[in-house]
Amino acid sequence: MKLAVCTAVIAMVMSNLASAQDVKPEDVIKFRKGAYQVIGWEMRPLGLMVKGEMPYNKDVFARNAAVIDTMSHVVPEGFTPGSDKGETRAKQEIWSDPTKFKAALDRFQSEAAKMNEVAKGGNFDAIKVQFGSLAKSCGNCHDSFRAK
Amino acid sequence: MKLAVCTAVIAMVMSNLASAQDVKPEDVIKFRKGAYQVIGWEMRPLGLMVKGEMPYNKDVFARNAAVIDTMSHVVPEGFTPGSDKGETRAKQEIWSDPTKFKAALDRFQSEAAKMNEVAKGGNFDAIKVQFGSLAKSCGNCHDSFRAK
Repeated sequence: MKLAVCTAVIAMVMSNLASAQDVKPEDVIKFRKGAYQVIGWEMRPLGLMVKGEMPYNKDVFARNAAVIDTMSHVVPEGFTPGSDKGETRAKQEIWSDPTKFKAALDRFQSEAAKMNEVAKGGNFDAIKVQFGSLAKSCGNCHDSFRAK
Repeated sequence: MKLAVCTAVIAMVMSNLASAQDVKPEDVIKFRKGAYQVIGWEMRPLGLMVKGEMPYNKDVFARNAAVIDTMSHVVPEGFTPGSDKGETRAKQEIWSDPTKFKAALDRFQSEAAKMNEVAKGGNFDAIKVQFGSLAKSCGNCHDSFRAK
């Protein structure tokens, strides 16, 4: 997928553009929160389907998984230098340990890409397993990089 | 594009799911605002490129246009019944004149899909024209359905 291949380079470019163009830190934070709102929104019905609290719908599952895959490549733009201060629960470690943070983002992107593929297949047992892995990659990043 | 074809049906399904699953109106509003934050964020550098205030970068333009295309199919989920009340500038006409609102969303989706296609082509003159049409479709909806 082209989006996935170009992500690392583009995230860097965008990050540079954002700082070069003097986007205010509070606007970066608003965008960042917004992007995670979208991911949470799209995840929610998938979680309910996996738990059996909503009927499984192949099209809805696949469609939301595709959006989450796209969004996994959007969120890295939201961690520009200087956007650590403000109304945010983002921890300092994001900026002080970029290697560890990048690994957490990479894992999320990888699990989201797999979720997208598996969701298209429509095998609900496989979908449930992959949804668990995706949710773990979310939790992994939140545990390390988001304040309680 | 599969996303585009399924949108109308899925927006209805999602809207029904959201209300059936008792998502709080304030959470719908948070998601809705978040989705538009993402669109605004992705639009911004494109506007700067079109105005000559940032160097044109074909990959970045095409990548952001693809995200905006996807997001144009995400935002309709954010206008569930009951989400008219709260911290929102969304006007009552969204719910009282759904035919007109749907037409405005359809126009946005159509222009975003065209932008995505034109951006891939890399013809900057054509890109500038289509960006103008896309921006107009945003403004059209804001003028009619978003309070000042």
